[in-house]
Amino acid sequence: MARVRQERAEITRQAILNGAAIAFDRSGFGGTSLSDVVKHAGVTKGALYFHFPSKEALARSLMGEQFQVSQDIPAMEDPGLQTVIDLTHQLAAGLRSNVRVRAGIRLVIEFGSFTHPDPSPYNAWIDTCVHCLTPARDRGDIMPSHDVYDLSTFLVGSFTGVQVTSHVRTGREDLHARVVDLWNYLLPGIVPARRMHLFDPAGSRACRAELGLTTTAATPATPAATD
Amino acid sequence: MARVRQERAEITRQAILNGAAIAFDRSGFGGTSLSDVVKHAGVTKGALYFHFPSKEALARSLMGEQFQVSQDIPAMEDPGLQTVIDLTHQLAAGLRSNVRVRAGIRLVIEFGSFTHPDPSPYNAWIDTCVHCLTPARDRGDIMPSHDVYDLSTFLVGSFTGVQVTSHVRTGREDLHARVVDLWNYLLPGIVPARRMHLFDPAGSRACRAELGLTTTAATPATPAATD
Repeated sequence: MARVRQERAEITRQAILNGAAIAFDRSGFGGTSLSDVVKHAGVTKGALYFHFPSKEALARSLMGEQFQVSQDIPAMEDPGLQTVIDLTHQLAAGLRSNVRVRAGIRLVIEFGSFTHPDPSPYNAWIDTCVHCLTPARDRGDIMPSHDVYDLSTFLVGSFTGVQVTSHVRTGREDLHARVVDLWNYLLPGIVPARRMHLFDPAGSRACRAELGLTTTAATPATPAATD
Repeated sequence: MARVRQERAEITRQAILNGAAIAFDRSGFGGTSLSDVVKHAGVTKGALYFHFPSKEALARSLMGEQFQVSQDIPAMEDPGLQTVIDLTHQLAAGLRSNVRVRAGIRLVIEFGSFTHPDPSPYNAWIDTCVHCLTPARDRGDIMPSHDVYDLSTFLVGSFTGVQVTSHVRTGREDLHARVVDLWNYLLPGIVPARRMHLFDPAGSRACRAELGLTTTAATPATPAATD
């Protein structure tokens, strides 16, 4: 009985988060009321308050979801530079197809960057990149002159802005191409020329297959050395 | 007489924009009321309405100011890649020292990217970059394989995100260093190796002198070719 009740509670909690994601994605933190959430979630206001004490608690929960992926990384075998490339493509695909990812990222940028500035989502992403790029540098995939923490900070900032720009200019239609560009421009400045062939700016074969990306032949990054 | 009246009107208009900038920089579009603007500007509500019909008109005016710099570019002799590098450092300095720049950029990102998505500020910056990078590519400073429009789109997106991240993580304390990083990572992937020595990722000497930057010896970008 307790287990059934627990499962039912989790279903309700997920319905509330889905409803909140739809509302936040459309109207942002300031433009969303708890009545909107209740309407989109199809639950009672009582159920909502049972799970989340406030609109801010809902927002924090959705922002936190963006970084669940980080928790899976330590378990990953052999994280490296291609892992980070693939993560950016996975997040880009999530932004296009998953309203909870979209709502979370909108909240991080609007609410979490200006209304209530909170560096923790950015820091969580930076830590994930550092976790992947430290072994990458150790094995010679990143130029030894680069500081892995600064490089990770740049990657997180750059990706954040690239996806906002793609959102406002094309409704994220061009997001995959813009992320491929990011890596094409960047790889020659961070990867030693002799290691460039190891990385695919359009995502690894496994990543492209998982995301159903039709880009079978990725444009290889142009190493500065050949020009 | 008419001229005196016109000058006085312009002084009032500027006072209103300064007051609005202080309010928007602190509280964003949603958190600012016209009473806040009147209070910070030291003008009457009547004077405010004479110049600006609405809060949105104030926001649009401040967002538009971010792109006045673009209008000076066509007059510039010999725009090129270093012009774009210097522009990013000028904007970074403006974000740290000028509340009108800060308010304008906060409005572009919050209000203009999500609340009322409007690509025109982003497109104006992209056009400025294209205007500088097209002659740069013609003279061999940009690899011929790169599309100048896509590269400009990346630069605008990347800079946008780098400054948001610096704002939320360090209150923009580290912004200059993060913009130097951006160019250090990026230049080897966009500039032919033989032309790398022509560009300074920390800003040209004239730019650094104008902005009072103490970085006299800039870290040269590491060309991929040497590694």
